[in-house]
Amino acid sequence: MELNLFMIKPIVEQALKEDIGYYDLTTVSIIPEKMRAKAVIKVKQQGILAGMPVVKLVYQLLDPTVTVNLLQGEGAEVSAGMTVAEVSGPARSILTGERVALNFLQRLSGIATKTRAMADSLQYFNCHITDTRKTTPGLRILEKYAVRIGGGRNHRFDLADSVLIKDNHIEVSGGIKNAVSKVRRNIGHTIKIEVETTSLEQVTDALEAGVDIIMLDNMPLEMMSEAVSLIGDKALIEASGNIDETTIVEVARTGVHYISSGSLTHSYKSLDISMDISYGDK
Amino acid sequence: MELNLFMIKPIVEQALKEDIGYYDLTTVSIIPEKMRAKAVIKVKQQGILAGMPVVKLVYQLLDPTVTVNLLQGEGAEVSAGMTVAEVSGPARSILTGERVALNFLQRLSGIATKTRAMADSLQYFNCHITDTRKTTPGLRILEKYAVRIGGGRNHRFDLADSVLIKDNHIEVSGGIKNAVSKVRRNIGHTIKIEVETTSLEQVTDALEAGVDIIMLDNMPLEMMSEAVSLIGDKALIEASGNIDETTIVEVARTGVHYISSGSLTHSYKSLDISMDISYGDK
Amino acid sequence: MELNLFMIKPIVEQALKEDIGYYDLTTVSIIPEKMRAKAVIKVKQQGILAGMPVVKLVYQLLDPTVTVNLLQGEGAEVSAGMTVAEVSGPARSILTGERVALNFLQRLSGIATKTRAMADSLQYFNCHITDTRKTTPGLRILEKYAVRIGGGRNHRFDLADSVLIKDNHIEVSGGIKNAVSKVRRNIGHTIKIEVETTSLEQVTDALEAGVDIIMLDNMPLEMMSEAVSLIGDKALIEASGNIDETTIVEVARTGVHYISSGSLTHSYKSLDISMDISYGDK
Amino acid sequence: MELNLFMIKPIVEQALKEDIGYYDLTTVSIIPEKMRAKAVIKVKQQGILAGMPVVKLVYQLLDPTVTVNLLQGEGAEVSAGMTVAEVSGPARSILTGERVALNFLQRLSGIATKTRAMADSLQYFNCHITDTRKTTPGLRILEKYAVRIGGGRNHRFDLADSVLIKDNHIEVSGGIKNAVSKVRRNIGHTIKIEVETTSLEQVTDALEAGVDIIMLDNMPLEMMSEAVSLIGDKALIEASGNIDETTIVEVARTGVHYISSGSLTHSYKSLDISMDISYGDK
Amino acid sequence: MELNLFMIKPIVEQALKEDIGYYDLTTVSIIPEKMRAKAVIKVKQQGILAGMPVVKLVYQLLDPTVTVNLLQGEGAEVSAGMTVAEVSGPARSILTGERVALNFLQRLSGIATKTRAMADSLQYFNCHITDTRKTTPGLRILEKYAVRIGGGRNHRFDLADSVLIKDNHIEVSGGIKNAVSKVRRNIGHTIKIEVETTSLEQVTDALEAGVDIIMLDNMPLEMMSEAVSLIGDKALIEASGNIDETTIVEVARTGVHYISSGSLTHSYKSLDISMDISYGDK
Amino acid sequence: MELNLFMIKPIVEQALKEDIGYYDLTTVSIIPEKMRAKAVIKVKQQGILAGMPVVKLVYQLLDPTVTVNLLQGEGAEVSAGMTVAEVSGPARSILTGERVALNFLQRLSGIATKTRAMADSLQYFNCHITDTRKTTPGLRILEKYAVRIGGGRNHRFDLADSVLIKDNHIEVSGGIKNAVSKVRRNIGHTIKIEVETTSLEQVTDALEAGVDIIMLDNMPLEMMSEAVSLIGDKALIEASGNIDETTIVEVARTGVHYISSGSLTHSYKSLDISMDISYGDK
Repeated sequence: MELNLFMIKPIVEQALKEDIGYYDLTTVSIIPEKMRAKAVIKVKQQGILAGMPVVKLVYQLLDPTVTVNLLQGEGAEVSAGMTVAEVSGPARSILTGERVALNFLQRLSGIATKTRAMADSLQYFNCHITDTRKTTPGLRILEKYAVRIGGGRNHRFDLADSVLIKDNHIEVSGGIKNAVSKVRRNIGHTIKIEVETTSLEQVTDALEAGVDIIMLDNMPLEMMSEAVSLIGDKALIEASGNIDETTIVEVARTGVHYISSGSLTHSYKSLDISMDISYGDK
Repeated sequence: MELNLFMIKPIVEQALKEDIGYYDLTTVSIIPEKMRAKAVIKVKQQGILAGMPVVKLVYQLLDPTVTVNLLQGEGAEVSAGMTVAEVSGPARSILTGERVALNFLQRLSGIATKTRAMADSLQYFNCHITDTRKTTPGLRILEKYAVRIGGGRNHRFDLADSVLIKDNHIEVSGGIKNAVSKVRRNIGHTIKIEVETTSLEQVTDALEAGVDIIMLDNMPLEMMSEAVSLIGDKALIEASGNIDETTIVEVARTGVHYISSGSLTHSYKSLDISMDISYGDK
Repeated sequence: MELNLFMIKPIVEQALKEDIGYYDLTTVSIIPEKMRAKAVIKVKQQGILAGMPVVKLVYQLLDPTVTVNLLQGEGAEVSAGMTVAEVSGPARSILTGERVALNFLQRLSGIATKTRAMADSLQYFNCHITDTRKTTPGLRILEKYAVRIGGGRNHRFDLADSVLIKDNHIEVSGGIKNAVSKVRRNIGHTIKIEVETTSLEQVTDALEAGVDIIMLDNMPLEMMSEAVSLIGDKALIEASGNIDETTIVEVARTGVHYISSGSLTHSYKSLDISMDISYGDK
Repeated sequence: MELNLFMIKPIVEQALKEDIGYYDLTTVSIIPEKMRAKAVIKVKQQGILAGMPVVKLVYQLLDPTVTVNLLQGEGAEVSAGMTVAEVSGPARSILTGERVALNFLQRLSGIATKTRAMADSLQYFNCHITDTRKTTPGLRILEKYAVRIGGGRNHRFDLADSVLIKDNHIEVSGGIKNAVSKVRRNIGHTIKIEVETTSLEQVTDALEAGVDIIMLDNMPLEMMSEAVSLIGDKALIEASGNIDETTIVEVARTGVHYISSGSLTHSYKSLDISMDISYGDK
Repeated sequence: MELNLFMIKPIVEQALKEDIGYYDLTTVSIIPEKMRAKAVIKVKQQGILAGMPVVKLVYQLLDPTVTVNLLQGEGAEVSAGMTVAEVSGPARSILTGERVALNFLQRLSGIATKTRAMADSLQYFNCHITDTRKTTPGLRILEKYAVRIGGGRNHRFDLADSVLIKDNHIEVSGGIKNAVSKVRRNIGHTIKIEVETTSLEQVTDALEAGVDIIMLDNMPLEMMSEAVSLIGDKALIEASGNIDETTIVEVARTGVHYISSGSLTHSYKSLDISMDISYGDK
Repeated sequence: MELNLFMIKPIVEQALKEDIGYYDLTTVSIIPEKMRAKAVIKVKQQGILAGMPVVKLVYQLLDPTVTVNLLQGEGAEVSAGMTVAEVSGPARSILTGERVALNFLQRLSGIATKTRAMADSLQYFNCHITDTRKTTPGLRILEKYAVRIGGGRNHRFDLADSVLIKDNHIEVSGGIKNAVSKVRRNIGHTIKIEVETTSLEQVTDALEAGVDIIMLDNMPLEMMSEAVSLIGDKALIEASGNIDETTIVEVARTGVHYISSGSLTHSYKSLDISMDISYGDK
């Protein structure tokens, strides 16, 4: 599957340890060891589902005899009251894993939901919404996955993935051209170079330096439009800087190819999802 | 300090590895190895500061020669434009650690800010805002810390900390009294027992079972008031269930002692904070 | 089961790595790769069995094709010569895992045996034996489990579980009441407060401060009795301080509710248990 | 120093995490952040001191500003009331680390004390007490160190260190000679071969096979003496099998070179040691 | 420095644990604890030095009181007999860390030496030598660093860094164009696309698909030259396939921009380097 | 099996994480999630096969539904074009694991091939080829396994396995006899003592000290022969010091019992092995 479970196992193990502590006092004291239960995972709010494979992994790690039956796929549009999965197995394990499973599912669905909303705003433009490195420490692999599920594209994963020359780098080098040529002497040929610009002069410099991507950072809309005409198809164009649901369309109208938004991962709301449990033979 | 750095080192190490990948291509290519820089951490939005010791730890782990000088304490009320810390040392290290440092600081300050707002609503009540287990997987120790900094109290840290008997546990046991007596036969004497109730009958049952804390879950305000009179000082009273900034005051008016809110940690907005870097001798 | 295997996997993995080093030179040199064997785990001394699920986990991690068939449950009273489990599978794996499996089983059974003896002394009293934080570094989760299996109760698991105000804390605060009120301003409502007392004055202070648990630390029996009358049902009462098999009954007679004893986990004797192996087709 | 701190850091880190949980509620609530304290570590019982470098490491990891001043060296004979170390630094850190520091120190001193007693019994014999692999899971490196401090010798550390052919291996191979020759075809030249024997026939077989060490396992004293004469200086001789303080001398009298005893590490009593704290300027 | 020590700490820690096992029996038995020593690291063969910061880290982790004074920088051309560093500190620590330090240094210098030789062959061409993912498991970050030190460029670090469409991917997609367009629908804009080609038809396809890099895989020299004319400056050109010291120049003559060679990291010879120790006051 | 998979799981997990990064962009974009594939692992060069169980483990960890069917056993002599294993399962998983699987297999087969060549040179001598501690950091357990598969013997695994007294140790002690007697006072009876000698005087000293193994380090052939006569069967004899394929036979002719060679693990060439994949129903 797209989300490689092998890669996220350590994250889920850590989350389970964090939540269990020693053992689930309440559940072990009250629920008989052999009691079995069924549970349904219910969405209580409209949104986009993301993270169901993580729910599966939570239970696989905690107790491999629990089975999770997915009723909705990743990226499905869900609405209040919809059942998205059934969980069955030992009642103790289902209860003990519930919070961790939901903590992942609610967050990832929250990100996918926010991303989808912004992606939908761009559907009539040749423009994609993209994330940033402003992800929750330790969860980047999952949050960037949720962005993809929501219909967004991923910006670089880490500092070794591609080059992004920012104002600080430019200042030190004495200009964009020097910065780019320093980078070219060092990096491999599989690496793209992006430059952050805040003026048309810088855009011109970046074009002359032959970079792959030009970021228009916090530019007024008009300047952005001029930059787009200036660049044409000589580089990919990315707009950046506090762009949100209210401004995304007018930014897209300038003709930029990508709009990156940190808020996709740093300020989303968790989707409201719960688990309802019913018991079998006691 | 209140935040034990020893306990959060693995979290910060993981965050740094995640963000660096192999190495910071851009910075290593452009910034001379011996160049030094100074940076200031600037808040761009009103709020409550939390997480400065984590910023210190980020740099201590990445490069112990970087020094971080804190200008504002944890919990300080900050406003747009305020400088909260100065960072100085090798320019490469300052740049490479910037995003991770801010990712922590913005999130924790976001939680503290949201918590403080809710705590302030309660200032004329004998009532405290408290968090839940709906924290970000892997970051509970930090997020619960931020809640404390914001003026909130912590609910249990994990499933072994205290007993919380929920609807599922009650159903299996055939009622609150049976559930409580099962728990009493198993747990240690340092553990408190809390029961989730949704009706006055359940409140009465919980009182008769002699529990320490009674949670009023998603009760209408009127029922809540009746429950409060019923309980008096025979148990601590916690209100729960989608209580937010708009409803917190009327809930507090019922006389409950604690209001728990998952949104403190599952749906906060990061506080806008940035780092401005200037260079020394090149 | 009560012992969550997910939580103890890292402990067992570490134990196996520690004992194997590179590989079992002797076994690999002598035992043919395909040879199968059966083994029985035999108790050689009267006691209480604890740790069989750990034995299962040892083999599950080392070689999932080994099967462990439990003949006695956790907490069973066993006597010399009794077979408590059968192990079958590849001979090499059975031999290589033997020592680690027994190292866990003998220790945990030793703790359960010691705990049961002390718990039995208390059977005609309304008083429970409880452990402390004097557990073996790295094994607390298992040792506290063994105490429960032996019929004891668990004191707090760690420093974040509940508050225990000791002489040092009292001294700094200028008395119990100040200490308690400082604590109350900081901790969550799910946390109990216990105070260590060594005199009747301190007991009175603790009562007036309204703490949940009063520990009578190293008090003479007479003073303990007076303290018990003083406290009545206004707090739980815990006796502590070098109480062993010879003194436990007279302490219980004073009417205390809990007797905590570090020796349950810091000075137990391992139960004598061995594995006898027989070979199938060579 | 003999105990390589680098190698035991993960053990101590794990112990601290286990004991702290989230944070030390009591200490953080009561002790002011800037308060400093002095503490002394006092022995309350006669014995042999072992583990002081671990105490140092506990504080170095928890808070490097705490200083530990050792007054007694490893292996020192200590008696009730003796101060063995002074600890000074932030009061919070001293209190939070106390239990973990003592948990290590008491156990290791307990092992050293038991080992010294048995080693002393052997002082007029050309015979050494030696440990086994019956160590506490996860602590072997420390427990075997404590045995050395107590005057004992280490048997093999793990299954890859040296060859020990036991009854099961012999049975499969059709006798000692076959077993030894199989081993010789596989192992490196730096590895010694030991064989477990229970009869004089087996001793003869082992001698003829030219093994390095012959273990006399659970032999009656007379048979042991005969075995010793039979072997002479053709192999090292190790006696094994439930030898304790009461039987060690008569076993040594048979002339064996080594006596191995699992009880050194599986059934020791912790040495009674405590920390007394006094406060500086509040 | 270019090699971020924070990122390689876990690798060095693992190497030290692996080599020490329990403790250095020989050194601890023979060398007095307080003896100090000086050592020099001497190269015994001509080559390129790489890995000195790792040597520093080895000692910093093992014993921070050891000082390592570097006399030659990374990438220096060294010859037989040259002293490249001085190490001084506790004799035990210097001896115990020697093998691990040299194991890293010899391998990394071996890679740098091999890379420099191939890079030198290309000095009159506009062509760079580049590595592959055929690195030693667990050491990629270090081996790719050594390639850079030797004057080579890095190909992608991992499967998420850039796209490389190989024969298998092409076959499944029904041709290069389909494969590329599938990729374009999924990946972020910071990612380059490279295609492996084995015929001129595939080269044409790749050009029409507008990929960033065209790899000429195992092509005869003539076909390679034709491919280069065909491509011109419309894509970067990489030659691949068992190119070694004997064939590199004729491949470069075809006009390709990059030559990738797995042998840089999978079949290098360690550079002969040793440590000579002399003792201070005993 | 001889290679305990439990012990190498962390190594393989680390290798997979290192190679995957976030996820396999190319494969996930192009290969349908449900597509299945078959692959064969083909040797392209004559040599000795080693590491097939590691290949199995790579896929078991990455995706347990992939099956690996081994057609050739460990240690098999393979020649160009031979298929040694079949892999079948989800196409994505097979592709994503390919490089890691081959990286292990090629290196271990390279070591086994080099070892076998040297072992074959010794077939008419009573002499064995043996490895050293000059192994790749992190891979010692696997590389020493490959040496055994190739027909070599293992020298010590780590510094705690056996004693090796080198020139530095001798110098400090004031001669071999002192060094040996210091060691004897400290180490356990299961540990062998080896001494490095460079002259006949030292050989005589070592003999008189009664060591188990005498290493003849970098001795001229004639001196080696004299040393062999001097020693006879009073100790095992190991030759060491830059012995390679061209000199091994003449060294063996001197009568030494073991020849140790660091080049087995520090300068081998990977065996050329590849994976060919074909697709099932798309």
